Amino acid sequence: MADTDPEVVLRALRRTRQIRAFTEEPVSEGQLSAILEVARWTGSSMNVQPWKFLVLRDRSDLERISDLAQHSRYVRKAPLAIAIVMPGGDAEEEAYDEGRVAERILIAASAQGLGAGIGWTVGSERPAVGELIGVSAPAYVRTIISIGHPTEDARRLRSGPGTGRRPLAEFVRER
Amino acid sequence: MADTDPEVVLRALRRTRQIRAFTEEPVSEGQLSAILEVARWTGSSMNVQPWKFLVLRDRSDLERISDLAQHSRYVRKAPLAIAIVMPGGDAEEEAYDEGRVAERILIAASAQGLGAGIGWTVGSERPAVGELIGVSAPAYVRTIISIGHPTEDARRLRSGPGTGRRPLAEFVRER
Repeated sequence: MADTDPEVVLRALRRTRQIRAFTEEPVSEGQLSAILEVARWTGSSMNVQPWKFLVLRDRSDLERISDLAQHSRYVRKAPLAIAIVMPGGDAEEEAYDEGRVAERILIAASAQGLGAGIGWTVGSERPAVGELIGVSAPAYVRTIISIGHPTEDARRLRSGPGTGRRPLAEFVRER
Repeated sequence: MADTDPEVVLRALRRTRQIRAFTEEPVSEGQLSAILEVARWTGSSMNVQPWKFLVLRDRSDLERISDLAQHSRYVRKAPLAIAIVMPGGDAEEEAYDEGRVAERILIAASAQGLGAGIGWTVGSERPAVGELIGVSAPAYVRTIISIGHPTEDARRLRSGPGTGRRPLAEFVRER
């Protein structure tokens, strides 16, 4: 990255926030491709690349997921969502790898002026959402990332100095 | 991010790779602070910010971790490592949150021309490493991220076009 000011990337990282309120403006094909290309290059345990990505745009799908999954209510207000399909292998490795790729998707959306929010399915919601979107056990969908253009309010929140995080001194220690 | 060319950030994301070979050049305090500041702003389930970060630089610590943890062998060659200390609550949520913050640390290191590699402890290595660096149950250390300046070979690998990932068409599907 010698050709880039590191601060440009560091600022983009620090400013990436969960966004849960979107305008009706669609996400362009170019924006979606850029996000998926970043997701593709994400590292994973032993480079197994365990994920598949299911792009959801159908209004009825998004509304039904919103009804089914209590932590993904706001997906009904997003123009688009990406469901991460995991194979159902080692639970610890999959949750970890999935966190890594979900975070990259958030950052890639934010870098393009979009907003993204990670929603989960839990318990019996998981097979119900799977059935709706054609994912059968042992594969499952834990993460549904809503993506769209943030509303003015959400945008203001994101560009501000930020609140709601503990100071570094509280959780960094030199041994 | 309207003031930044999105492609600068997207490229930094696509080019972030695991690095496991480092020169002897130390990581500066400024570089470390920038990484920890990015980590601080990482999102987590319900914003609980469950992690603590333990900065390891003592050669003897790094060598003993390398001996103890089979997936973290290369930590002995790094000038510095960050151990992520998790509290020992919900296993699925913690692995996911930890994947998110580990990925950010990788990207923040890479953006500064550094390299970083995620190493894990598994099974009985986990309490052994914990005891060594002063982390007691229920808290534990799964992730140890080695950070340093990449060797020439590692740098060449990173700046190349990249290999070893499946094409998008294999794992993206429109519903």
